[in-house]
Amino acid sequence: MSRHRAEGPRSPWQEGTREALAAAGLEPQWVRDVVVRALSEDLGPGWVDVTTAATVPADSDRRAEVRAVADGVVAGLLLFPVVLAEAAARLTLPVPIADLRVHDGAHIEDGDVVLDIRGATRVLLVAERTALNLVRHLSGVATLADTWVGALGESGTRLIDTRCTTPGLRPLERYAVRCGGGTNGRAGLYDAAHVTVAHAEAAGSVAAALDAVRRRLPGALVQVDVRSPLQGVEAVHAGARFVVCEGMSVEQLASTVPQIRAATGDRVEIACTGPYGVRDAARLARTGVDHVYVDTLVSEAREVDLELVLR
Amino acid sequence: MSRHRAEGPRSPWQEGTREALAAAGLEPQWVRDVVVRALSEDLGPGWVDVTTAATVPADSDRRAEVRAVADGVVAGLLLFPVVLAEAAARLTLPVPIADLRVHDGAHIEDGDVVLDIRGATRVLLVAERTALNLVRHLSGVATLADTWVGALGESGTRLIDTRCTTPGLRPLERYAVRCGGGTNGRAGLYDAAHVTVAHAEAAGSVAAALDAVRRRLPGALVQVDVRSPLQGVEAVHAGARFVVCEGMSVEQLASTVPQIRAATGDRVEIACTGPYGVRDAARLARTGVDHVYVDTLVSEAREVDLELVLR
Amino acid sequence: MSRHRAEGPRSPWQEGTREALAAAGLEPQWVRDVVVRALSEDLGPGWVDVTTAATVPADSDRRAEVRAVADGVVAGLLLFPVVLAEAAARLTLPVPIADLRVHDGAHIEDGDVVLDIRGATRVLLVAERTALNLVRHLSGVATLADTWVGALGESGTRLIDTRCTTPGLRPLERYAVRCGGGTNGRAGLYDAAHVTVAHAEAAGSVAAALDAVRRRLPGALVQVDVRSPLQGVEAVHAGARFVVCEGMSVEQLASTVPQIRAATGDRVEIACTGPYGVRDAARLARTGVDHVYVDTLVSEAREVDLELVLR
Amino acid sequence: MSRHRAEGPRSPWQEGTREALAAAGLEPQWVRDVVVRALSEDLGPGWVDVTTAATVPADSDRRAEVRAVADGVVAGLLLFPVVLAEAAARLTLPVPIADLRVHDGAHIEDGDVVLDIRGATRVLLVAERTALNLVRHLSGVATLADTWVGALGESGTRLIDTRCTTPGLRPLERYAVRCGGGTNGRAGLYDAAHVTVAHAEAAGSVAAALDAVRRRLPGALVQVDVRSPLQGVEAVHAGARFVVCEGMSVEQLASTVPQIRAATGDRVEIACTGPYGVRDAARLARTGVDHVYVDTLVSEAREVDLELVLR
Amino acid sequence: MSRHRAEGPRSPWQEGTREALAAAGLEPQWVRDVVVRALSEDLGPGWVDVTTAATVPADSDRRAEVRAVADGVVAGLLLFPVVLAEAAARLTLPVPIADLRVHDGAHIEDGDVVLDIRGATRVLLVAERTALNLVRHLSGVATLADTWVGALGESGTRLIDTRCTTPGLRPLERYAVRCGGGTNGRAGLYDAAHVTVAHAEAAGSVAAALDAVRRRLPGALVQVDVRSPLQGVEAVHAGARFVVCEGMSVEQLASTVPQIRAATGDRVEIACTGPYGVRDAARLARTGVDHVYVDTLVSEAREVDLELVLR
Amino acid sequence: MSRHRAEGPRSPWQEGTREALAAAGLEPQWVRDVVVRALSEDLGPGWVDVTTAATVPADSDRRAEVRAVADGVVAGLLLFPVVLAEAAARLTLPVPIADLRVHDGAHIEDGDVVLDIRGATRVLLVAERTALNLVRHLSGVATLADTWVGALGESGTRLIDTRCTTPGLRPLERYAVRCGGGTNGRAGLYDAAHVTVAHAEAAGSVAAALDAVRRRLPGALVQVDVRSPLQGVEAVHAGARFVVCEGMSVEQLASTVPQIRAATGDRVEIACTGPYGVRDAARLARTGVDHVYVDTLVSEAREVDLELVLR
Repeated sequence: MSRHRAEGPRSPWQEGTREALAAAGLEPQWVRDVVVRALSEDLGPGWVDVTTAATVPADSDRRAEVRAVADGVVAGLLLFPVVLAEAAARLTLPVPIADLRVHDGAHIEDGDVVLDIRGATRVLLVAERTALNLVRHLSGVATLADTWVGALGESGTRLIDTRCTTPGLRPLERYAVRCGGGTNGRAGLYDAAHVTVAHAEAAGSVAAALDAVRRRLPGALVQVDVRSPLQGVEAVHAGARFVVCEGMSVEQLASTVPQIRAATGDRVEIACTGPYGVRDAARLARTGVDHVYVDTLVSEAREVDLELVLR
Repeated sequence: MSRHRAEGPRSPWQEGTREALAAAGLEPQWVRDVVVRALSEDLGPGWVDVTTAATVPADSDRRAEVRAVADGVVAGLLLFPVVLAEAAARLTLPVPIADLRVHDGAHIEDGDVVLDIRGATRVLLVAERTALNLVRHLSGVATLADTWVGALGESGTRLIDTRCTTPGLRPLERYAVRCGGGTNGRAGLYDAAHVTVAHAEAAGSVAAALDAVRRRLPGALVQVDVRSPLQGVEAVHAGARFVVCEGMSVEQLASTVPQIRAATGDRVEIACTGPYGVRDAARLARTGVDHVYVDTLVSEAREVDLELVLR
Repeated sequence: MSRHRAEGPRSPWQEGTREALAAAGLEPQWVRDVVVRALSEDLGPGWVDVTTAATVPADSDRRAEVRAVADGVVAGLLLFPVVLAEAAARLTLPVPIADLRVHDGAHIEDGDVVLDIRGATRVLLVAERTALNLVRHLSGVATLADTWVGALGESGTRLIDTRCTTPGLRPLERYAVRCGGGTNGRAGLYDAAHVTVAHAEAAGSVAAALDAVRRRLPGALVQVDVRSPLQGVEAVHAGARFVVCEGMSVEQLASTVPQIRAATGDRVEIACTGPYGVRDAARLARTGVDHVYVDTLVSEAREVDLELVLR
Repeated sequence: MSRHRAEGPRSPWQEGTREALAAAGLEPQWVRDVVVRALSEDLGPGWVDVTTAATVPADSDRRAEVRAVADGVVAGLLLFPVVLAEAAARLTLPVPIADLRVHDGAHIEDGDVVLDIRGATRVLLVAERTALNLVRHLSGVATLADTWVGALGESGTRLIDTRCTTPGLRPLERYAVRCGGGTNGRAGLYDAAHVTVAHAEAAGSVAAALDAVRRRLPGALVQVDVRSPLQGVEAVHAGARFVVCEGMSVEQLASTVPQIRAATGDRVEIACTGPYGVRDAARLARTGVDHVYVDTLVSEAREVDLELVLR
Repeated sequence: MSRHRAEGPRSPWQEGTREALAAAGLEPQWVRDVVVRALSEDLGPGWVDVTTAATVPADSDRRAEVRAVADGVVAGLLLFPVVLAEAAARLTLPVPIADLRVHDGAHIEDGDVVLDIRGATRVLLVAERTALNLVRHLSGVATLADTWVGALGESGTRLIDTRCTTPGLRPLERYAVRCGGGTNGRAGLYDAAHVTVAHAEAAGSVAAALDAVRRRLPGALVQVDVRSPLQGVEAVHAGARFVVCEGMSVEQLASTVPQIRAATGDRVEIACTGPYGVRDAARLARTGVDHVYVDTLVSEAREVDLELVLR
Repeated sequence: MSRHRAEGPRSPWQEGTREALAAAGLEPQWVRDVVVRALSEDLGPGWVDVTTAATVPADSDRRAEVRAVADGVVAGLLLFPVVLAEAAARLTLPVPIADLRVHDGAHIEDGDVVLDIRGATRVLLVAERTALNLVRHLSGVATLADTWVGALGESGTRLIDTRCTTPGLRPLERYAVRCGGGTNGRAGLYDAAHVTVAHAEAAGSVAAALDAVRRRLPGALVQVDVRSPLQGVEAVHAGARFVVCEGMSVEQLASTVPQIRAATGDRVEIACTGPYGVRDAARLARTGVDHVYVDTLVSEAREVDLELVLR
């Protein structure tokens, strides 16, 4: 059961925008809320750009294009039509038309035109900053994810994101990770269990914690943190089938993975998390770990520079 | 006239939290919205941490402390009590008590304890990620601002932030800049005018644009972008008293500033903006420019690592 | 004083829809909320019908008609234009035109066409289930009410509905009862007093309860439950002028009614409530009771089948 | 990604209520909205029960029990604590304690006590009708589902519900079906594709429709309606792997199922839908169909009578 | 059917406040909205009284009384507990206790104590202005209504208010009129029909307008404006049974009333409206008019001065 | 930082309306809320004017003008287009065009036409009362402010309004004061400090209170109430630089002002407040006081009569 406000988007979004968001796993209404909130920060209580209102006639139209000023993987282009439409709605001007030249997830290079726009100049100027702030940020995340995925290579080891995201933007940042070829970890504290040291302590033991979670959530994915090979083996003996090796050096990890696998005849999924960087990726992959959890896909991402140019 | 929703915060926030936020220039209700939105991302529609609910008794209490794991300037500590209170409200558990050991804006070092908490273990575990995501990010911004301010030195040249912020978090990021000793630029498109090339073109000329803005907003601050000494002098002759030198090299800037000042007997404020880094700060200051606008205080900030440790 | 949200309906409803609802005693804004909530259940957070979006072009138009597949009394037809308009608004497509061939309250027979529609095929397919769920259910209630009213005949005994309604739909179900010729009882616990055994006990006696209610609500309608002729007479002596005979057999009722009427020279209204069925109606009427309260008008109603046929 | 309002339940619900709802697949906030809406219908704009306010002291406490007055499968008991808590919140009285004697899904018999309550008398009287309306209705649905499931026997043929639900209550009615041992079909138009005749016509053919849906929703469940064995075989040839036999007699169905299965070496899921009743269940099961879609689980359900008795 | 937001008041209002408002014909939730809106104007986005926060300790308690500083009829005292409770909720301080010494509608004299309060000093200081603004204004309206009613004397001519009210406060001002002994006219454009010259023109004639309204609203009250005896008689002949004499001098009115009454054997209600003052009341009453509509009960009301004194 | 709901006005307001409000210091969204709330009072839950709906065709268009029926200073004309647009939106009719002949703040005379309107007759009739109620009231406030300002003459003594405003309308009434040439005092308890006797008592002394406020709000404006020359001098010695002489006769004030000024070499701002009327203005000005706080600008204002005339 999925719940949401009964009010749906009613702004005159460009045909196909809502469906594109839904297909990308983004709720249109939620996206609209994010965009309107961002616009409201920039336009203030009066929804007015004082400079533009004073200098640009309401009926002035322009063409513009969005151009890459750096290389990277683009993410968030599909937000551009939303920002334009919502800005237009607030200015009570017609919605500009935006044509995507490339799609989210594409590799772009400095100079590439990624989007053509034509419409009311006032709307273009008002939407520019909000749209670029979003796209640059998300493209940075996608690019870092892509770098990791490339570095992990054909090993089968997957890049997984974590709950270290910008408050209010998690679904978009998870989308950006997908654009970069990464895989989403759990969405939050609610959609999978992850037994940390604190939980094991509170329950009495890892086994007791596993048991408690399973009684409560039969059939749910349950991950267990371990900090040593011994803890890993014990966790498996206690019934864990998804083990997260936390804070180990690559060498430790290399010796821990086979020990955990040897502890049972069942399939065990093994993930690792720690202060690793892209430079560690190939070696992590060689340890045979299934998943690398990377906390820093958002915080270490460098924005990909794009600019809006009036023509 | 300041507008806002008539509903105020009703959660049992710790005494003094609301006033501290107000004194810091942050609207309590807006802060609450940001925090609740972030918690809701993490707790999902059921407001439940499945692992904690299964393993930690409702009446378990713990002490915890928040510790720096890196050096920097801290910002956002005053959000911790809000996250704890709102998490507690959603779990219908008592609100933990949080004692700040240092205040936002303080320089902290690896190992420093910045906050003591005691209260329901469930609340501590649920609030941890949301609170740390906020504080790490804002401390990163404050630290970068502080580095800039230090590099500009005693010159009188001020560091100014821009509208390049994370959608939905602008007021907090502006606060972080203040914590780092920086100065806020305009809040958005609504509270000051900034005549760019596009506006001048639309109005016919810089002079026409200046004139249009002044008629509309008598007495308002009006900034004008210029890209050469000549444009700067022309802008001043057209009546500009706040000139933003855009995209000049430091050398160009050094020659432009005195030309602009010489163009009138009035006081002219001069700012610069461009792809400058901290390493350029001292030379920028020596140009005599009044303000350096830095677009990258958010995007280039590195999170300051802090952790929550149960005791 | 009537209170309500200040926001009124802004969707481009078909001319006359709002007025028709108001004339039917249904608040347009409340109806809109019910309809949008129902649509949102069916369309999900993305407001999308995935099958239709994939297979039916946005510009496809069709004619359709709503046909009875059973006999009954129709109720809720006036919701059809609302469902169509709100579905269209969410799909950002033009609002289809709906022409009612019969009005709510009409007797319909298998095969009757009750409504013609023409408009965007996508809207027709999306609105179909929500609209039919509403109309079939309400027509079922109207039909059962009509059956009761027919069975009570020309006796003057009135059919009254009760608070046993579907949560969230009470005003619509009360409307359906009116369409079937029935009369609405009190709308809720707030618009009339009804002294049950529990209230009499709490107040000390029926007389004390009557007194307490009258002091609080001078001039209000006060009904009193009685379970025997004696209690009925006592209630009248205590000042009751509206007595509800609860749980009596038809025979008991027949002897109780004249005793109550004989207990005072004033006019006393007498109602009955119990596990009666339509087959008891004629005999109930002959007891001289003024009102029959029927708890099961909703729960025992059988949906009246109607279908939407594309042409 | 699941979206929802950032506001969570803040009423002092009884410990464990929120978690029980989440475990039952019901969003606590959504449940709260349903309950508050139902209470508001009954209590009116003043949130006042005029009879109770006049006759029952605010500090009066009582015990009560909820008793079955008929046999059936109970569903919705876990809503009782929510209704009590929200009623108490509105009356600003303490929340009564409710102890469930049996759990949703249990078979109950006339006379069984299913729930004990103790608390403020005013709250008990105010909550009674709203809570009983919900539980009786949902228990009716659960009981009808249970009857179907029993009649289908050990055949492996599963009972599936449909989108024919009460507007505003779909998630609860789907829960009731699960309580009765049934299986939920798609939640709405958004979470699976179902190609009907209208869609096939619009797309040009069943094959074209299947193709269009798959391009749009790679990997999604796609059901296809067929009305004859021939259509079934064609659908399978066109790539359908989930076929819904619509409107066939049991005999037709018996001959269609093996023809469809023979049309391909792949596994094909076969469902049927039509005006079947419980009496047809055993014969339907013997056709070898995998799923029986029953439109009438809500509309044909008979309420299970339960009553609240003060002690 | 009465509609309203499902959220009821949840602040810890003093026992009996909600019921008192409901008994006074005021919806508690609406009153709460008005009060919270007013407090929010005064406390700003931070919900803070900077002076009080700085100088008065949170745990300081005081007694206070509200005293009349002028004579008049008091109205709005029952809002005082609401203002205190909502202010306390926003300051997260205990709700002060307020004891009414007199009730709304009472005649008060300079020096009378009308209310005793004890509670947190901060709350008293914060609530003071908002509460007094409301009570003074409403008491002014009640006093003017009382003066009119007194001047009309025992004639049977009733004072009726009009739609000339302060936007956002109409229900309170209508309540104040009732406190002063006046009678409420229609609540708005929706609850009764009033045919003016413009409507008669649009419909073609008074008779056509009357006819159109009656077809649309069978059984509704329909008032008709007339400006001369002749128009009055024509209106009666056209079927009007409620005539409003508009803009006539008292003398004209005196001759018109009997002519209208003579035009039919039915009972006709006659009202008058015009630029009359209290000084005209006795003469108006003597014309035999049934109702005097006074537009200026709000705009000409003089506030009744009351003050809050800390003790 | 300015906060506000993310939703901006989306009704099809006439071009330039939003900007005009913003330039007047009124938040468009807040104005819209006020207007919609007022309309909803008048139109009821069905948003219907029953008389107009019955008698005036939906496609009837008219011209109208708003005319002064008295002399005064007009304020609130810029609300007319908002009322018309919002009424039109609710009736789903086109928005009428309104041309202002004069601007808010203009002196108008009986007979002046201040506004031309043309558009749907239904909208004109529905909007009339709400718009006139607002404009008459605000013009009354502006006119009284103008009278005061005229009476204070060229003295330099300024008229200041206070927090004695109509709940829910403060920003509009402050705007009206500005239209009349007056100056706004503090907006509420939050944007400046005002130390009264109660605060001084609570803090221990005026000096302690001043000190406490300054520590909390460095740099804020702090006003101090004094009731005698001695208190004034003491306040200045305690560091006060803004003194409010409360409740003094004009004579007392005349002797107090120079004593306060003599108490320090710094500039001290001196205000007075008390039961003064316009007749005292010239003498107040002569005392040399800087500001006169007038509590009664709203409560003593007489509406300026304007009427809407269909042509």
